[in-house]
Amino acid sequence: MERSPALAVNNIMESVFTKIINGEIPAHKIYEDDKVLAFLDIHPLTDGHTLLIPKQEIDYLFDLPDDLYNYMWQIAKKLAGPLKDAMGVKRVGVIVEGFLVPHTHIHLVPIDNDQQLKHGARNHDMTDEQFAKIAERIKHEI
Amino acid sequence: MERSPALAVNNIMESVFTKIINGEIPAHKIYEDDKVLAFLDIHPLTDGHTLLIPKQEIDYLFDLPDDLYNYMWQIAKKLAGPLKDAMGVKRVGVIVEGFLVPHTHIHLVPIDNDQQLKHGARNHDMTDEQFAKIAERIKHEI
Repeated sequence: MERSPALAVNNIMESVFTKIINGEIPAHKIYEDDKVLAFLDIHPLTDGHTLLIPKQEIDYLFDLPDDLYNYMWQIAKKLAGPLKDAMGVKRVGVIVEGFLVPHTHIHLVPIDNDQQLKHGARNHDMTDEQFAKIAERIKHEI
Repeated sequence: MERSPALAVNNIMESVFTKIINGEIPAHKIYEDDKVLAFLDIHPLTDGHTLLIPKQEIDYLFDLPDDLYNYMWQIAKKLAGPLKDAMGVKRVGVIVEGFLVPHTHIHLVPIDNDQQLKHGARNHDMTDEQFAKIAERIKHEI
């Protein structure tokens, strides 16, 4: 089916995360409901590094309406236990920065020491199969 | 007044953050209520780098009871605007890691680009007077 020019323009305007929400870009999803989506970061700091995003495209975390902001953090807490258990780590760290994609995303990063968030060495070599296995392990714990 | 040995032992067991809450260690406080305290990090990633902690000494963010956890994030949102305005930056980033001090702390870091959280170069040379000025600027906005 051909796309209308208007739709094509809309698609260019959408964030890469909205394209993931809409299924236009594939992702290894671990949790989804009507308000938020969580999926594996494709360049993870550690295995299981997850991005939690609101479905509403709002650039900056602290600009989210209170109810959606609070809901995001509740879901972060809901996912943290399963993430920790699935990856067998000591805790789940949190980063919110957001200069690269203008669509709020909370990084949930399984960590075992104080260097893994700081070091910032992202893994660019993971295969789709490796991601799929990790996503299954996490979803199994949720 | 002499301290009893029992009290001395208790004090050793307390986290450095509980000592700040109790006024045993000084800090540049920017916000305080009955549940939480926010003060300037003494080795800031950027000027205005703030730590938000619960008064209850709980090691891990995601182990906080739901009501206190939600309250912490509400206060983080409440402080983010004043912090951003006081420091004249684009946004406030968030880090929660927590391997060094076993008392939950949310880092609120004024940032202007995608390197300031990652780079991790902390400033160890700030004077008490510089901290005091920054704390006043932030408190003025709250």
